[in-house]
Amino acid sequence: MHEEKIALVDGQVKAVQKAVAARAVENVYFVACGGSLATLYPGKYILERETAAVSTGAYTAAEFLNDPPARLGEKSLVVLNSQSGGTPETAAAARLAAGRGALTAAFTTTPGSALEQAADHIVYYFDDPAAPYPAVLTIFPEVYKLTYALLDVWNGTGRLPEVNAAMLRLQDTFDEACAAYRPAARAFGAKYAGEPILYSIAAGLDACVGYVLTNCLVMESLWKHSSPLHAGEFFHGAFEAVDDTAAVFALLGLGKTRALEERAVKFLQRKTGKLTVLDAAALDLEAYPGWLRAPVSALVLNRLAALYCDEMSYAMGHPISSRRYMGVEKY
Amino acid sequence: MHEEKIALVDGQVKAVQKAVAARAVENVYFVACGGSLATLYPGKYILERETAAVSTGAYTAAEFLNDPPARLGEKSLVVLNSQSGGTPETAAAARLAAGRGALTAAFTTTPGSALEQAADHIVYYFDDPAAPYPAVLTIFPEVYKLTYALLDVWNGTGRLPEVNAAMLRLQDTFDEACAAYRPAARAFGAKYAGEPILYSIAAGLDACVGYVLTNCLVMESLWKHSSPLHAGEFFHGAFEAVDDTAAVFALLGLGKTRALEERAVKFLQRKTGKLTVLDAAALDLEAYPGWLRAPVSALVLNRLAALYCDEMSYAMGHPISSRRYMGVEKY
Repeated sequence: MHEEKIALVDGQVKAVQKAVAARAVENVYFVACGGSLATLYPGKYILERETAAVSTGAYTAAEFLNDPPARLGEKSLVVLNSQSGGTPETAAAARLAAGRGALTAAFTTTPGSALEQAADHIVYYFDDPAAPYPAVLTIFPEVYKLTYALLDVWNGTGRLPEVNAAMLRLQDTFDEACAAYRPAARAFGAKYAGEPILYSIAAGLDACVGYVLTNCLVMESLWKHSSPLHAGEFFHGAFEAVDDTAAVFALLGLGKTRALEERAVKFLQRKTGKLTVLDAAALDLEAYPGWLRAPVSALVLNRLAALYCDEMSYAMGHPISSRRYMGVEKY
Repeated sequence: MHEEKIALVDGQVKAVQKAVAARAVENVYFVACGGSLATLYPGKYILERETAAVSTGAYTAAEFLNDPPARLGEKSLVVLNSQSGGTPETAAAARLAAGRGALTAAFTTTPGSALEQAADHIVYYFDDPAAPYPAVLTIFPEVYKLTYALLDVWNGTGRLPEVNAAMLRLQDTFDEACAAYRPAARAFGAKYAGEPILYSIAAGLDACVGYVLTNCLVMESLWKHSSPLHAGEFFHGAFEAVDDTAAVFALLGLGKTRALEERAVKFLQRKTGKLTVLDAAALDLEAYPGWLRAPVSALVLNRLAALYCDEMSYAMGHPISSRRYMGVEKY
């Protein structure tokens, strides 16, 4: 059953790839809201670093809709994402983009949604907290697939099969990492359950993991205060606010910006007794090709950050699904 | 004496304009750190919306340096900014860009700095907290000048003289606004001096004002916790953390994203008793051409946010120049 879904998704990614290959695309805009924007960010980050064929941009949907870039047009690919497919500003952004002649491709879990109706191409992903799908069918890995599918077009490479194979291995890697880190996650939850503030800090591709951690987990799900600090920006202002009054969750990835993250961690080790560090260098990523380990490490860090916050929710007696405004009232 | 400096700056802006006109520039990268990056942001935001001639990007310098965009090259204009001119990663980014054949232009206050030595073109700005220069000589207005100078090249417009004239009026507008808002600023300082957390929230061009407020004022200068919330992103996660435990400073600008900011303000009015709103609609901007009022309003909001934080620093007995790490120790 999962095989069918994987084949469906791979076919949908190929369809976008084919449409892009048939067009003169000059710019790629990633448009969504909150966690759905953060999970598109690898597309922007990786394309921007790995191909000179296109320019890229990432926008929260309402801003894109109200004040779109001047280059939005027939030479644009607009990639959108909404879990429900019903996020009004994301669906409206898809309609705006289509109206300007752009090629549109949308990720969603929901067939027949407003977003699907507005987009030229759709890529389904799968999300059921009660009975989780294997990682390969979730949003981040699917965004990686699309990203490398596009790079294959623009760079004349042929890496998509290797990426697809890697994404199939991801669930095992997640399971092993979660088993290994669960005791640490539990200790984290117990130690910081009462903290009112928990910053995240990261750099480069890992910044989207920090954003998910801050925005979706700490703020949305645990109702704690946070900010997605950027390790490169940190020393130019924000660090002055940090001392023992704030807990900090730091990510150390394997990408070219690891040095920035390490600098922040070294400083934080001296300045707060409430530092948690997740270091991807400790992960077993031998199963992945060397060139793909940095991007894969970001996904494992993301999985582990969710584990840590799950454990915190248990320690707090505050279910991770708790919402007081979202879906509860009008705003 | 100020006339000479203004003429110097205008000549430096013209020199960049001339160099750009003589080249096939296809992308513009804005590169700096912290507040110096935020003050370049209008360049990115406005160019991206007002010309299809170039693509744009904004990067914290260390990330740009460690993992630069693939398009960085002879068709790039790289605009940098460092007050001291000595920020190591910004100067190194200028050298990287020059090495790739890009045209480089740097803002700084400091003649002869490492940044000046690395950049093709320099634009001086002036900053002396003890004896402030008129607004026209400070960084934000100068970035506006360069932005519209570039647009004149790429769009065939001729708006720079109007912008230069507007920037000359800015100090009077600031003075009037500060006089009018000082009582409110003082009340703000007194009311929230003891708050440990003060979020900013804004959208569109105003997001850079929110970033300066959070990063440079609240965190760096007042040592309070904060995050630069984006009004468009707010409803997709972060808002769940907000209640009476957090003070929020909201900006309402005059741009196309005002509706996003208004939506956030309406929600916050119901959810926290600690909301401060600065609404640009209440400002007298009659002296400015209609098309320039939204960008000008962001500068006035920025000036007023600084006034509010000055008043808070007095109420806290914590000088706005207080630093415990920056320039105090190695990191």
